[in-house]
Amino acid sequence: MLSVIRRCSTSAASKPAVYSHRSGAKTKAKKSTSFSLKTPRGTRDFCPAEVIHREATISAIKSIFTNHGGEPIDTPVFELTDVLLGKYGGEASKLIYDLGAEDGGEKYSLRYDVTVPFARFLGANRISKMKRFQIGKVYRREQPVVQRGRFCEFYQCDFDIAGDYPKMVADAECLKIVDEVVKKLNLGPFTTRVNHRSLLGGVLIHCGVPQEATMSVCSSIDKLDKESWNFVAEELQTKKNIPSHVISQLEKFVRFQGDSKDTLQMLEGEIKSPQVGESIADLNLLFSYCNAFQIAPSFDLSLARGLDYYTGMIFETVLTEDDLKTGSIAAGGRYDNLVESLTSRTKKPFSVPCVGLSIGIERIFALLQKRQENPKTITTEVFVASPQKNLLKERMAVCGKLWNAGISAQFEYKNNSKILDQLQFCEANAVKYVVIVGAQEAAEGVVKLKNMATREETVVKEEDIVEETRKRIC
Amino acid sequence: MLSVIRRCSTSAASKPAVYSHRSGAKTKAKKSTSFSLKTPRGTRDFCPAEVIHREATISAIKSIFTNHGGEPIDTPVFELTDVLLGKYGGEASKLIYDLGAEDGGEKYSLRYDVTVPFARFLGANRISKMKRFQIGKVYRREQPVVQRGRFCEFYQCDFDIAGDYPKMVADAECLKIVDEVVKKLNLGPFTTRVNHRSLLGGVLIHCGVPQEATMSVCSSIDKLDKESWNFVAEELQTKKNIPSHVISQLEKFVRFQGDSKDTLQMLEGEIKSPQVGESIADLNLLFSYCNAFQIAPSFDLSLARGLDYYTGMIFETVLTEDDLKTGSIAAGGRYDNLVESLTSRTKKPFSVPCVGLSIGIERIFALLQKRQENPKTITTEVFVASPQKNLLKERMAVCGKLWNAGISAQFEYKNNSKILDQLQFCEANAVKYVVIVGAQEAAEGVVKLKNMATREETVVKEEDIVEETRKRIC
Repeated sequence: MLSVIRRCSTSAASKPAVYSHRSGAKTKAKKSTSFSLKTPRGTRDFCPAEVIHREATISAIKSIFTNHGGEPIDTPVFELTDVLLGKYGGEASKLIYDLGAEDGGEKYSLRYDVTVPFARFLGANRISKMKRFQIGKVYRREQPVVQRGRFCEFYQCDFDIAGDYPKMVADAECLKIVDEVVKKLNLGPFTTRVNHRSLLGGVLIHCGVPQEATMSVCSSIDKLDKESWNFVAEELQTKKNIPSHVISQLEKFVRFQGDSKDTLQMLEGEIKSPQVGESIADLNLLFSYCNAFQIAPSFDLSLARGLDYYTGMIFETVLTEDDLKTGSIAAGGRYDNLVESLTSRTKKPFSVPCVGLSIGIERIFALLQKRQENPKTITTEVFVASPQKNLLKERMAVCGKLWNAGISAQFEYKNNSKILDQLQFCEANAVKYVVIVGAQEAAEGVVKLKNMATREETVVKEEDIVEETRKRIC
Repeated sequence: MLSVIRRCSTSAASKPAVYSHRSGAKTKAKKSTSFSLKTPRGTRDFCPAEVIHREATISAIKSIFTNHGGEPIDTPVFELTDVLLGKYGGEASKLIYDLGAEDGGEKYSLRYDVTVPFARFLGANRISKMKRFQIGKVYRREQPVVQRGRFCEFYQCDFDIAGDYPKMVADAECLKIVDEVVKKLNLGPFTTRVNHRSLLGGVLIHCGVPQEATMSVCSSIDKLDKESWNFVAEELQTKKNIPSHVISQLEKFVRFQGDSKDTLQMLEGEIKSPQVGESIADLNLLFSYCNAFQIAPSFDLSLARGLDYYTGMIFETVLTEDDLKTGSIAAGGRYDNLVESLTSRTKKPFSVPCVGLSIGIERIFALLQKRQENPKTITTEVFVASPQKNLLKERMAVCGKLWNAGISAQFEYKNNSKILDQLQFCEANAVKYVVIVGAQEAAEGVVKLKNMATREETVVKEEDIVEETRKRIC
């Protein structure tokens, strides 16, 4: 495993030293060591350049969320275990981290996503209408695959619309938001595939899939973006015990070649069920709204999405020119029953339909980080230096004044440091100005202000240093 | 317990509806309910106004941290239990949340602070020099006292300086940073008390306190800011078994009346030990640097601070005019051995001296929130409305263009909504402009742009709407 420790060392070593390593050696934690300073399996430290890079990406996404009227909330990192259980489906539930039992008998688990906590928030506060976003860490006890960006602690970045609105309007806005995010971040060409849980369910019934096998068959079909039909058919037959005539029926629909309109027309012609008819009408309405927003998702009957809680429109966005095989960079859908299912066991049942999207922000971080220069991590504008020793307090006094004026500054900590070393720090960190406090100048109540780019030096009265510096920086 | 649920409901109800509650009733979770939607004991949800308020405060503090050359890092929310154990002292260790055991035998615990994770980060990466800040949630299994702001999940906001520097320079910079933070946030008059662990240790030895009782006696003495001398003396005698002649000796030093200079002079005169002499010299140097920074902390021999890892200067900042009895709003100190103690058990021992500060950000949030207006949580600048029905797609098209131009906009979701209801939303959320899409106007390819403050309406060609809106907003 490419350990965190190494990642941080490597990233710092490949750029001008942001902070100093006493040894350049890669300190990969060894298994044989009895005690290790590694982070827990599947978790990482983030170095300054990574944190700053991530914050910039998050900030760009946030501005789109707020442009759509989104409001931020924050929920605890752990929840009552009871709140999380049974919301995600069998496979996912095994990935939940539990905390040690509490004295009072309450059981807690780390959150698996921010969707169920949002539904709990809506239910607990009986909120009937809200556009909310939440960007925070979630936890899954998966086998980490660092190369593929799969970690046990990672960020989720969600926008959801709760409220009882006319059909498909909020759904279309979610797709529009994803479109804006991908374009704003310049992630390159992408496509959004859309399906409807109810339509997929109707097709499965029509093909003769038993009700209890629905989710299981969906999860096989969902693999069609990565696996061949033969692989999926084999899995349906051997692992899921689906009869071969049912599989043939499924194949006809799932592998139908045609654009969104053709496929929906074919389904409407072939399957005469109210469930199918209604969900096709929903999708046609959705596409007409997408048209108004000038976005063009495509229909894909094989899209299923893993989580149990989806009830209506579901979608997934992938980059189409992506050497890194990033996979989906956004996904989401409608979950009209989640709040109700949480509140139905309380004394105050409450229901609110919801639709939302999740930006695959970890994958986006990875993509952008490969593409971009490491950001500057130290933003010091002024360095206070001395060519002679014993001027430490004089430097501190000047630096203190700059800080009081809100100017980003540092001073040399050593009482006796070579001026060249001090200027080298300025070069390495792109510091723009150096205030030089000299013995003679100090006696005269002046300092030198040096422009690092032009090398120009100006003699400035000590009491004017803040004003003169500010003038130059602004 | 004032539950989270109620807090959110209350804060939303007391201001123009940011999001709609179906019922205004306070939905306090009842103990008798078999299933509850509450958050875990001692944790809270944060509503939009709270999140925005917190982010503004954090942003103000961050700008001071970066002005001092600080770089951000991020570490996992849980750590290997081994990393945390034995770092905080007996009482604190009991407050650590453990996660359920992992298959691989690794044991994890939620982080108790961000200092030990920083020390682990330094040790793992062998970083010999760094100014880092970290703002994140930490976890303590305390008995929550909501009224006093004591929670089990709360933010810590730390700035630390790692590096082998001349004595007391970085220590003074930490005190300067705290001074800037308190002033920038307008928290009112404050005082910073400073002590030296080594000086306190030397005084205890001089008084005859047995070595093994040092930490325990310190924790009693630390209560002198809240409790009387009699209370502390009683505790020392009955609970800590300190002989009364030792307590009398302690009293002489701890209760000495005088300013910082007098007290240090008295100690220097009374106690002839190299340990005491050296730490007094350290403190005098620290005060001379503080003088250069134009800040004036005071010496207080009774300040002890709870955590085991401190080795040198320690400090605590309290507000002096504070009706809310907030307690300390910043604290910190020097911990020169923490990194070494972590790495000494690995195959690559490494040492780096550190000094740092922690801003009591939760207390500051609480103080500022009481004082300030709730911030605007929806920042929509333009609302796209219709006076007639069946213009939904036309509204969507206009809104889509505004979003594409990065303008914050929303549209009415309903196909048939009263124009008054739409304008009421704008009033409630201080929306500045309304684009009115009318049937006749739509036929003519124009819309109306209404200024909500002046009520002025302008007819604008649909293709010019983005430009005309942007002109007005900027």
